[in-house]
Amino acid sequence: MKIHNFSAGPSILPKEVFEQSAQAVLDFNGSGLSILEISHRSKDFVAVMEEARQRVRTLMQLPEHYHVLYLAGGASLQFLMTPYNLMKEQGGKAAYVDSGSWAANAIKEAKKLGTVDIVGSSKEKHYSYIPKDFTVDDSYDYFHCTSNNTIYGTQMQEFPKVPVPVCCDMSSDIFSRKLDFSQFDLIYAGAQKNMGPAGVTLVVVNEQILGKTGRTIPSYLDYQNHIAKESMFNTPPVFNVYATLLTLRHLEKTGGIEAAEKRNRAKAELLYNEIDRNDHFQTFCVKEDRSVMNVSFELLSPELKEMFDQRCKEAGISGLNGHRSLGGYRASIYNAMPIESVEVLVSVMQSL
Amino acid sequence: MKIHNFSAGPSILPKEVFEQSAQAVLDFNGSGLSILEISHRSKDFVAVMEEARQRVRTLMQLPEHYHVLYLAGGASLQFLMTPYNLMKEQGGKAAYVDSGSWAANAIKEAKKLGTVDIVGSSKEKHYSYIPKDFTVDDSYDYFHCTSNNTIYGTQMQEFPKVPVPVCCDMSSDIFSRKLDFSQFDLIYAGAQKNMGPAGVTLVVVNEQILGKTGRTIPSYLDYQNHIAKESMFNTPPVFNVYATLLTLRHLEKTGGIEAAEKRNRAKAELLYNEIDRNDHFQTFCVKEDRSVMNVSFELLSPELKEMFDQRCKEAGISGLNGHRSLGGYRASIYNAMPIESVEVLVSVMQSL
Repeated sequence: MKIHNFSAGPSILPKEVFEQSAQAVLDFNGSGLSILEISHRSKDFVAVMEEARQRVRTLMQLPEHYHVLYLAGGASLQFLMTPYNLMKEQGGKAAYVDSGSWAANAIKEAKKLGTVDIVGSSKEKHYSYIPKDFTVDDSYDYFHCTSNNTIYGTQMQEFPKVPVPVCCDMSSDIFSRKLDFSQFDLIYAGAQKNMGPAGVTLVVVNEQILGKTGRTIPSYLDYQNHIAKESMFNTPPVFNVYATLLTLRHLEKTGGIEAAEKRNRAKAELLYNEIDRNDHFQTFCVKEDRSVMNVSFELLSPELKEMFDQRCKEAGISGLNGHRSLGGYRASIYNAMPIESVEVLVSVMQSL
Repeated sequence: MKIHNFSAGPSILPKEVFEQSAQAVLDFNGSGLSILEISHRSKDFVAVMEEARQRVRTLMQLPEHYHVLYLAGGASLQFLMTPYNLMKEQGGKAAYVDSGSWAANAIKEAKKLGTVDIVGSSKEKHYSYIPKDFTVDDSYDYFHCTSNNTIYGTQMQEFPKVPVPVCCDMSSDIFSRKLDFSQFDLIYAGAQKNMGPAGVTLVVVNEQILGKTGRTIPSYLDYQNHIAKESMFNTPPVFNVYATLLTLRHLEKTGGIEAAEKRNRAKAELLYNEIDRNDHFQTFCVKEDRSVMNVSFELLSPELKEMFDQRCKEAGISGLNGHRSLGGYRASIYNAMPIESVEVLVSVMQSL
């Protein structure tokens, strides 16, 4: 039976990526060696890292003074690296938007290194909308936001113009839509949604914002070290970077970010239309802030839960459970999710 | 042609691990899903993490108050996590042994958080031996050493009894020999030599030494957080943990650490015997501290270099170059290296 994988992450990737990365585990580039046993300093892997960095540069149309890094530790380590690299040691102060659990985790880490002002929050309304209309003056070292809130299914539709460096956690919607990426100074994203397997984190950083904090930064946490070593400060997660490169190649081959956005909007529209039409379902969030990546919704008729779950199972639908903190359902419809899988889900919803 | 992979890391793993992990990338456990697209909270992956932790516990015969974690960021992140978790914020002081470049990197990070006393160093002699006969009193927060120095080919044959917690970077000889692992309080090892692919780091820690520094530790850097979340504080590197589990299963199946040690000693003896017998070669280090994992050696007759390199190439020998900081040659003969490959190298050496 075909499985329709709606998992929130790690999540579906293109089938081609699975096939090519499995092949590389057996024999990488016809070398007779597995991708798991080659040196990260080998010519073949240095080329992989170089191409993986270059493709992000091209896809995002990044200016020269931006750098692309592949690090370890997930967004959770970036929650800490962001203030370490950007918040002044003396009197450091940053502006954060609290739009969800992951944003709150980022805030928690920044508070350990300086003052954090929460300039917008939807916490009191169960994160059901994206905070807007806040002001950020130039007294802050930087501004931080989360572009997409995986759990609640909300997404920033636009980004504020602020007079300080703009940092954005794009873990769950990276490469899903066209943006002017140069409006950000720091972007990070755990790969395990739209980019590749878990175990590698993309960091894009404007070098002009670095080196200004007066802090002694531990080596691994210092973006400048990773830039100087061309993302090879220490042994990178070789396989994970390679599988990410395969995903990026696939993205370019299928039309790049613009084409992906078009497909994503079609999938989201199909699913939200059904939720709006069907009296048994509703989203957790306000309409205007709905995410094109994570469609979180609840079933309003609890007596139908068993039947709905059973029919989903029979249809091969997997990973539809909502996050344990919120309950309900969550259909993650990342780049690699085909519209056919969304159609299967919609038809099960219509069967109730 | 069969390739004999002497790479220092990432490095050779059992063929069975390549085959099984390639299969899991296509279809994990017959689920119809790739290991790259399953949730880390799925029942199947939680079982993988649990087994991978339990196997280390069994292999090392760890007491109850020890915890096994799989983290990201390599040993380089552990260089920092060690002092963060163990060095007191007020008047913190640690004793380090400087036995090689990686030890020196660990020292560099610890110095950022407190006082470091180098109680033994072979730096002035190009790290050609393991420092011994030093004393460590109980004024230190902890003691740190590196069990095997990958670059110079030296290895600690015994570990000092000291009255403070003992921390050891075992990246390049973990599971290569039987040790009383309970003599250590913190062990860490990047997986990419004896344990699995690059991208995951083993940490074994005695809970009794934690929580005593008075520091505010960033969440990702705090071992106690990872312990509380059973090594799932955030999304772990799913594939890398699974491939590590496959390697651990293979180790148990082939006789465990004791049998691996026997095989490793036979390989090392074969190679060192040839180096000692052959006037064209010598090791960089003193005899008594030679590593059973990394055999670093130089060719004493430069006029033979071209011929030696050519014959190695013809024999399918790969990854034999010494580290760029030292030059010469380095044969890394990790657990998965068959003695047949060492025989091929020895026969090329004999042909000169």
